[in-house]
Amino acid sequence: MTTVPESHRDLLQAQVAILATVGPNGTPQSSALWFLAEDDNTIRLSLNTLRQKTKNLQRDPAFSLLIMDPGSPYRYIEFRGTAVVEPDDDYTFADKLGAKYGANLRERDQPGETRVKVTLPLTKVVTWG
Amino acid sequence: MTTVPESHRDLLQAQVAILATVGPNGTPQSSALWFLAEDDNTIRLSLNTLRQKTKNLQRDPAFSLLIMDPGSPYRYIEFRGTAVVEPDDDYTFADKLGAKYGANLRERDQPGETRVKVTLPLTKVVTWG
Repeated sequence: MTTVPESHRDLLQAQVAILATVGPNGTPQSSALWFLAEDDNTIRLSLNTLRQKTKNLQRDPAFSLLIMDPGSPYRYIEFRGTAVVEPDDDYTFADKLGAKYGANLRERDQPGETRVKVTLPLTKVVTWG
Repeated sequence: MTTVPESHRDLLQAQVAILATVGPNGTPQSSALWFLAEDDNTIRLSLNTLRQKTKNLQRDPAFSLLIMDPGSPYRYIEFRGTAVVEPDDDYTFADKLGAKYGANLRERDQPGETRVKVTLPLTKVVTWG
């Protein structure tokens, strides 16, 4: 387990991170999403279980997460590792993530949809710029 | 083959794109890099052959390329498809890409290093925001 280097720790304050997962046919998929940096070596996501990225992680938990400096496209940090996907049926974690953004994630889901809490251990860290 | 929707075509003017490839152990890798949009349905990259992302594409050409709106983290376009990697030993394409950025890619490589031209057919397009 590694920690986020001091030089790039400010990027944990960015609005979004870009998550790459591997799809069922082996093709990578990327999307930008909200995240919560919970301590020095863990980032967590709240994902709707209907999303393809969620299904990807449930089948193959390998991930890459990249956070760009909003002020410079040439400065970023990338994490790689193996995600842990856990139920969040009662929205306990979704509420916590929503609080960071002043949003109610319950209102973003349709009736019958559920969420998972995705924990990303920051096993490998790459910095640029 | 698809084309880039008018609503997000301005993103082709961004400075960098984020390329996701699949590494030898199946873990995705992401990095930000320069790109050249050459027509409505093709983006090309110039990659040093020593880089891990290049080796990844040579082994497994499946890619995801995401371009964020520099002005809004909630607006982006993602492309998926199968990359075509071709030699660019004489830097013909590297010079063309460098011209876009006012840079000489030859000066960025060490003696003995080579480059490839990577063509990304934009087979699948996803837009957000």
